[in-house]
Amino acid sequence: MKFKSKYVFLVVAAFIMACAKDQKTVDTASALFLKGDKNTNDNFVGEVWVKSLVEADSLNETAVGNVTFAPGARSKWHSHPAGQIILATEGVGYYQEKGKAKVILKKGDVVKCPPNLPHWHGASAETKFVQVAITSRQNGPTVWLENVTDSVYLSK
Amino acid sequence: MKFKSKYVFLVVAAFIMACAKDQKTVDTASALFLKGDKNTNDNFVGEVWVKSLVEADSLNETAVGNVTFAPGARSKWHSHPAGQIILATEGVGYYQEKGKAKVILKKGDVVKCPPNLPHWHGASAETKFVQVAITSRQNGPTVWLENVTDSVYLSK
Repeated sequence: MKFKSKYVFLVVAAFIMACAKDQKTVDTASALFLKGDKNTNDNFVGEVWVKSLVEADSLNETAVGNVTFAPGARSKWHSHPAGQIILATEGVGYYQEKGKAKVILKKGDVVKCPPNLPHWHGASAETKFVQVAITSRQNGPTVWLENVTDSVYLSK
Repeated sequence: MKFKSKYVFLVVAAFIMACAKDQKTVDTASALFLKGDKNTNDNFVGEVWVKSLVEADSLNETAVGNVTFAPGARSKWHSHPAGQIILATEGVGYYQEKGKAKVILKKGDVVKCPPNLPHWHGASAETKFVQVAITSRQNGPTVWLENVTDSVYLSK
C-alpha cells in the first residue's frame, strides 16, 4: 500500500497542476485591456462594459475604447461620421451593415466600417465578445438609431 | 505491482495534460493577429515583422498595423504628422519621446504620441514586443530620422 499512496499523491498533484494551468489560460486570454465600467445608457441592450483607452482631443481626434459584450448584448443601429475600425480580440461577436448579411467576428478579425453607414455590433447569442473600437471624432459624434430587433439579431 | 503500473500511467497522463495546456497558453497568447512579413527597409534595426490590418484610404485615413519586434529590435527615431496611438499587446517593449526618459511597455499599455514629436519604439533587450500601431495619414506620411544609438536604447 506504500506504493499506492505515493502514486495517488502524484496523480492528485499532477491533476491540480493541469487545472491550475487551465485557469491561467483563461486569465491570460481575457487580460489584454481592463473591462472598465458597466454601460448605463440606452444605446446598448444587455450587459456591456466600456473602457476608454484613448480620448479624442486636439492632439489626436481618434478615440480608442475596449468594449465587452455579454452573450446576447448588442448596440443599437448607429453610424459614425468618420467611420470606425473594429479589432476583435476575444470571444464570438456579430457585426452587420445596413442592407448586408450579419457577419460573425472572432479574435483577430478586423472590420472597417465606412462613414455614415448604419451598422450594429454585439456578442453572439451564446458567447461573450470583446472588441477594440477605433473611432475618429473629426466629423462629429456617433449618430444613434433604432434598436436591433431579435429577428435581425438572430438572423442567419 | 499491479497498483504501481496503473498509477504510473495516471501520473504520466496527468503530466502530459499539464504540459499540453501550458503549450496552449503560449499559442493562445501569441495569436491575436498574424505576424505578417519581415521588414526589409532600413527604418528599423533588428528583426521586425509587420502585418497591415487596415490600410488608410479615402473612406478612413487611419492605418492600423500589427508590429512584432524581436528582442533588441527597434525603429529609428521618427515622427507622425497626425500623431500615433500604440496598443501594447504582448511582451516587453521600450518607447521614448525626444527629451523624455525611456518608458517600458507591457501588454495592455497604451501610448498617445503627439503629432510631429520625434520618438522611437521597439522590443526590450531580452524580450520580444508586439504592438498595434494606429496612425492617421491625414497630414502626410511618417518622417524618418536618425538611428537610435545603443547608449540611448540601453539607457535607464
